[in-house]
Amino acid sequence: MFPDPALTALRALLGDRLTTSPAVLDQHAASETHVTARSPDAVAFPETTAEVAALMRICASHGLPVIGWGAGTSLEGHALAVRGGVTVDFTRMDRLIEVRAEDMIARVQPGITREALNADLRATGLMFPVDPGANATIGGMAATRASGTTAVRYGTMRDAVLGLEVVLADGRVIRTGTAAPKSSAGYDLTALFVGSEGTLGLITELTLRLHGQPEAISAAVCAFPGMAEAVDCVIATIQSGIPMARIEFLDDASVRACNAHAGMALPEVPHLLVEFHGSPAGVAEQAARFGELAEAFGSRGFQWADRTEDRTRLWKMRHNAYPAIVASRPGATAVVTDVCVPISRLAEAVAETQADIAASGIPGPILGHVGDGNFHAILLVRRDDPDELATAKALAGRMAERALRFGGTITGEHGIGIGKKGHMAAEHGDAWAVMGAIKAALDPAGLMNPGKLVEDQ
Amino acid sequence: MFPDPALTALRALLGDRLTTSPAVLDQHAASETHVTARSPDAVAFPETTAEVAALMRICASHGLPVIGWGAGTSLEGHALAVRGGVTVDFTRMDRLIEVRAEDMIARVQPGITREALNADLRATGLMFPVDPGANATIGGMAATRASGTTAVRYGTMRDAVLGLEVVLADGRVIRTGTAAPKSSAGYDLTALFVGSEGTLGLITELTLRLHGQPEAISAAVCAFPGMAEAVDCVIATIQSGIPMARIEFLDDASVRACNAHAGMALPEVPHLLVEFHGSPAGVAEQAARFGELAEAFGSRGFQWADRTEDRTRLWKMRHNAYPAIVASRPGATAVVTDVCVPISRLAEAVAETQADIAASGIPGPILGHVGDGNFHAILLVRRDDPDELATAKALAGRMAERALRFGGTITGEHGIGIGKKGHMAAEHGDAWAVMGAIKAALDPAGLMNPGKLVEDQ
Ligand SMILES: Cc1cc2nc3c(=O)[nH]c(=O)nc-3n(C[C@H](O)[C@H](O)[C@H](O)COP(=O)(O)OP(=O)(O)OC[C@H]3O[C@@H](n4cnc5c(N)ncnc54)[C@H](O)[C@@H]3O)c2cc1C
Ligand SMILES: Cc1cc2nc3c(=O)[nH]c(=O)nc-3n(C[C@H](O)[C@H](O)[C@H](O)COP(=O)(O)OP(=O)(O)OC[C@H]3O[C@@H](n4cnc5c(N)ncnc54)[C@H](O)[C@@H]3O)c2cc1C
Repeated sequence: MFPDPALTALRALLGDRLTTSPAVLDQHAASETHVTARSPDAVAFPETTAEVAALMRICASHGLPVIGWGAGTSLEGHALAVRGGVTVDFTRMDRLIEVRAEDMIARVQPGITREALNADLRATGLMFPVDPGANATIGGMAATRASGTTAVRYGTMRDAVLGLEVVLADGRVIRTGTAAPKSSAGYDLTALFVGSEGTLGLITELTLRLHGQPEAISAAVCAFPGMAEAVDCVIATIQSGIPMARIEFLDDASVRACNAHAGMALPEVPHLLVEFHGSPAGVAEQAARFGELAEAFGSRGFQWADRTEDRTRLWKMRHNAYPAIVASRPGATAVVTDVCVPISRLAEAVAETQADIAASGIPGPILGHVGDGNFHAILLVRRDDPDELATAKALAGRMAERALRFGGTITGEHGIGIGKKGHMAAEHGDAWAVMGAIKAALDPAGLMNPGKLVEDQ
Repeated sequence: MFPDPALTALRALLGDRLTTSPAVLDQHAASETHVTARSPDAVAFPETTAEVAALMRICASHGLPVIGWGAGTSLEGHALAVRGGVTVDFTRMDRLIEVRAEDMIARVQPGITREALNADLRATGLMFPVDPGANATIGGMAATRASGTTAVRYGTMRDAVLGLEVVLADGRVIRTGTAAPKSSAGYDLTALFVGSEGTLGLITELTLRLHGQPEAISAAVCAFPGMAEAVDCVIATIQSGIPMARIEFLDDASVRACNAHAGMALPEVPHLLVEFHGSPAGVAEQAARFGELAEAFGSRGFQWADRTEDRTRLWKMRHNAYPAIVASRPGATAVVTDVCVPISRLAEAVAETQADIAASGIPGPILGHVGDGNFHAILLVRRDDPDELATAKALAGRMAERALRFGGTITGEHGIGIGKKGHMAAEHGDAWAVMGAIKAALDPAGLMNPGKLVEDQ
């Protein structure tokens, strides 16, 4: 399987930063989800782009798969070594290389986590807003085109990445993008690599757009009589041009789980969690206008969180919704779904999904980044119960089909990995083959994260 | 050159919407600039996607080049039929197909112009903000990844296009993107086709993001003692988080030309033209904060244009800056340049460019979308004077090199076409070959707008 000369060459390159220790291999065969796979043959911990390029050349010459690894928090088995090979763990390439405050950009290595980056940025008055909840790496987030709670205002990784350094399948190192805010100089390779899940190359550096830390922040939780009212309120808010920084939906089951887990006492009805960023006057105006709209849609129990510690508590609760929900069914494991629809169809899509879940007999609280039309059902299945797992997978499949029926996408932010490949043809038709053609052009031997995203070659 | 069976097949498909009349061929051999080329062998005026696909299959089977044509306003010879073939003029595919107000999106055919689109949208309360000045088509703007005065707030065509329908080189029709606001479902083909200048496929439909027409608008012109002060004011404005909708720079020579052409009487010093969009209170706050900053940077002669007619006059002057500048040197024709740098280097880049132009002896007023670090020198050369043309081309070349030296790009918004191909290797290195590999994968016979953007095959 793993040819000796390759091992020798990799060891010569990396010393003990190339490991085949079973514990480390196992760690890199694990995933946050039910998706499982064999372990890689080796795990590498490079420290420089040159090492990644040299590793890539060695693996290419031996026909060995190469799989990028950030924090391993992706949810569709993205980073699993389904055909063995070398997993490249970017933990040791985790530096903030440079902040250019005047240009509001930063250059980072891929292994830096978003929390570490924002901690490093704190004193600069700048921030990196993309927030998937999990403390993922910036490289992994770029590779999955991640987003999260703040995308409604600041966009996704598609918008946040200005340029990349990428090691290609043949070991060449390229740079995409520049430090200028925009460019029309040829194909948008940055956008092509963002979201490519390590199947076209390994990202070894990123140039990121930063944003000013808001002068003023105001946040609130707001209860609604029903899901439809909450969603209609979101639509009205967007249409009235109020620039929300966050607008999150929790259904009653999610609220119940959060209450139990975080010691909150919110009424167990659908909620919106909102946040506004701007000047003190701007934020006050936005909050007031949102308050009026929410009232018009029947909201009650509006609670403002203007002090930093209240806001921290609020978003901690939101970020811990996933473990809270998982904990709400003892002994359960989660099948996390992720669809995104045009916002005009969101209420329908959520309602149909809720009904489908209710009929299935397994619990599935729903929450989402509703400002983007993006929601998740966390399907809770008993560990090692194949029937429940099958039920959950069928539910997830119907969610994907439903999203397409409503003009949406099978994944708003989690990506394809292994788990969603079965729906790619339905979403893309012949365009999926175009993706395959691009993959074949850039990685003819099929060594970059094989088995993911494109049709098997 | 043009095989009879192809002509017969195309005529059978399109009737007299396939023309070889010399007047129409000549019209499609003309360009806004000094770049010239032979004319196409025929010009087609399709009315449906199916016709475009059938045309493409006929041309593919006869090895005939196919070149998209929107409004022909591109500035690097993009739409010229350098190897003959069939120019596909999208004039008859100019419909606004659908507006979905709740989702703030529109579906359009590629031949609709941005002015026609906004006229059609007026009653909906929505607008399409990308504004290149010229009344270009949306298809052409997508193909060049255009932007313009409003990119600083609303982004470029990269941000404005949510999805595409594309006819590929083999006649297959694909759809990219969905109507959902975001997606992580595989490679970002939308972004790949946006900016591909018709070299990968013909765009036959676009799904666009719209924005609400601002409740309140405030605009102003503001004189500065020097270019550096104006640019420093822009940087400070961006850093303070004031959400400008437009912030345009005109140097003294540009102001002089506009004064003469538009009957204005602005002081002949560098100016910023700014606009703010938002709620009445928000706009007032933004304008006040900008006013304070501008004063701190030595501004004088602040003139607010709060009435619609004053604003229209202001932006008409800006949009007519190009003909105004061309008219400022009788008998001259323009070499329009377009570079974009990190904003921290903008003052230096403009200063070096001004000095270079001054030393060259030809006039070259400078203006730009400075909020993006993007500026143009309009180099005015005597018609049919090869020496001046050579001088201008050398100046343009040095501008591109300078932009790269400052970490920027050889084109902020105009694109590559023929005119900028010579600088692609310098900007992209091996990444240019990656573009070539993608081109070869999607258009192996090299029939889609040959001779543009990628290295000659
Ligand atoms: C509780 C929880 C909540 C979540 N919430 C969200 C959410 O709100 N929004 C959201 O978008 N996601 C969410 N996720 C999913 C996950 O956090 C994202 O997919 C994240 O982007 C993965 O980053 P990572 O660093 O963990 O990458 P990994 O899981 O390590 O890898 C992800 C993919 O990227 C590739 N990769 C990693 N690094 C590189 C590199 N340097 N070069 C090339 N390819 C590379 C891998 O091969 C793999 O294909 C959540 C996950 C959890 C567990
Ligand atoms: C006075 C003036 C000012 C300008 N200011 C700006 C500015 O501020 N910002 C800016 O970005 N640009 C500016 N431009 C340049 C120009 O307006 C843009 O490049 C515009 O995007 C071109 O659109 P078009 O419809 O004229 O396309 P064309 O010139 O007809 O074509 C441009 C390219 O797109 C391709 N194409 C056209 N339609 C399709 C289609 N349906 N499918 C596939 N390919 C297609 C063509 O083959 C060609 O490669 C300016 C031009 C002028 C003359």
